Amino acid sequence: MGDNRTPVTVIGLGLMGQALAAAFLEAGHTTTVWNRSAGKAEQLVSQGAVQAATPADAVAASELVVVCLSTYDNMHDVIGSLGESLRGKVIVNLTSGSSDQGRETAAWAEKQGVEYLDGAIMITPPGIGTETAVLFYAGTQSVFEKYEPALKLLGGGTTYLGTDHGMPALYDVSLLGLMWGTLNSFLHGVAVVETAGVGAQQFLPWAHMWLEAIKMFTADYAAQIDAGDGKFPANDATLETHLAALKHLVHESEALGIDAELPKYSEALMERVISQGHAKNSYAAVLKAFRKPSE
Amino acid sequence: MGDNRTPVTVIGLGLMGQALAAAFLEAGHTTTVWNRSAGKAEQLVSQGAVQAATPADAVAASELVVVCLSTYDNMHDVIGSLGESLRGKVIVNLTSGSSDQGRETAAWAEKQGVEYLDGAIMITPPGIGTETAVLFYAGTQSVFEKYEPALKLLGGGTTYLGTDHGMPALYDVSLLGLMWGTLNSFLHGVAVVETAGVGAQQFLPWAHMWLEAIKMFTADYAAQIDAGDGKFPANDATLETHLAALKHLVHESEALGIDAELPKYSEALMERVISQGHAKNSYAAVLKAFRKPSE
Repeated sequence: MGDNRTPVTVIGLGLMGQALAAAFLEAGHTTTVWNRSAGKAEQLVSQGAVQAATPADAVAASELVVVCLSTYDNMHDVIGSLGESLRGKVIVNLTSGSSDQGRETAAWAEKQGVEYLDGAIMITPPGIGTETAVLFYAGTQSVFEKYEPALKLLGGGTTYLGTDHGMPALYDVSLLGLMWGTLNSFLHGVAVVETAGVGAQQFLPWAHMWLEAIKMFTADYAAQIDAGDGKFPANDATLETHLAALKHLVHESEALGIDAELPKYSEALMERVISQGHAKNSYAAVLKAFRKPSE
Repeated sequence: MGDNRTPVTVIGLGLMGQALAAAFLEAGHTTTVWNRSAGKAEQLVSQGAVQAATPADAVAASELVVVCLSTYDNMHDVIGSLGESLRGKVIVNLTSGSSDQGRETAAWAEKQGVEYLDGAIMITPPGIGTETAVLFYAGTQSVFEKYEPALKLLGGGTTYLGTDHGMPALYDVSLLGLMWGTLNSFLHGVAVVETAGVGAQQFLPWAHMWLEAIKMFTADYAAQIDAGDGKFPANDATLETHLAALKHLVHESEALGIDAELPKYSEALMERVISQGHAKNSYAAVLKAFRKPSE
């Protein structure tokens, strides 16, 4: 037990659940699977998985139970009423959710006598099992370490975030938010340059080059934030310089007839932060607009 | 003329103009400078620059005239009335503006008998002269090529974008937009994780790692966009999957009491695109929400 051949159960066989089960199977783990609609198990069964008839059978089959359903509510529907049969099991929950759901489920698991690791997957299903795939976990450290060899089969970037079961969700939504913010503004940029006949793939290398510069800006801002002195020195550009440049993007968007809502959101944000006395600060001061108002 | 010792005039000595002039001086160019408030030339004069008394004197001193002022209006105030003395000069305008200002200024220059290159600088002043500094130019190709050795002193990433004088501004605002979108969502993520005691520099390496994944997504989306078939295949995740995950970020933000306006903007955007029939498409379909409505 705890070696890399621990029998594993995977509950939930969406694209992600299928990828998780396949990774365990490939590494030679006895793998039991269950899904509400049984058909999704066919491929895995042909690869050697055991299909359980019920969630109770699925849980009974392995000490390590990996759950990947669409919502936490769905998870509680499926395994919430299994009672005694859960005792002594280790549930690794990779269902997407929020930090409060992670913490509440940990409290529920403790009452059930179940070990609980909450997790988040920072990769799409085809990336499961690759060296660069990042999966975050939180819970009791010794439990994580016991099953780490098996969990590492899902991704080389398997990372323990500590005992706070809400942490994986916080990292997950924060990084996804970075993705949407970056993708929205990338696609907005494509909309701008394509008005002059520039293709998206022509714009792409410049966007990638510029993201390297942006990474350097974020490194400087992170250090400024952690300094905690509220100084936010404008080593690159002041917020008022940013705002002046942003007004060109608002104007350009309006003149070209493309969506101006995104740059106008940034404009209102910067104006709000500048009005709070940060005109001469770096862009890091924008953090203050996001924080809880009382802080 | 046109070799790397062309006499150069730099008009406008803000931090950026000073950095430009310093780069020419360091490379041994005879460098004439002018600024509305003369004091800003002092440091450059001590390094060997010639300070012109008037814009007319400054323009008369060199064939190559680099202009870097705060606005295009400011540029027209300074050199717009010089008339005959401009004839035969090459103006390289690195003032920040919009594509219509670049094109209008090119039309004005043509009437004056002046060669005109419009440019945009994708680096902060301390980066001028470095190998990775990117500067975009547009205008007559032979003019760019003649002065390219001198212009390359300002940055190793000196790039010619073609004859459309509006192009540097389009690239500039599009890439700056990518920066603001990325920085806003990065800082929002910091605001989320810091509620659980995670420092900005602790979050930073994950953000940088995740930006590498985001770069791969954008490469896929750019190819989908250029395919032009409107198919936007969801190779990574469907828009409805994105939306479901986004709702966790909205919920998380609200539950933590931090700003939810940014994720709510993304939510409304995705819902709009999904309502147009793109639920099963990739995130690239969001481009359609940004494009001019008639297209």
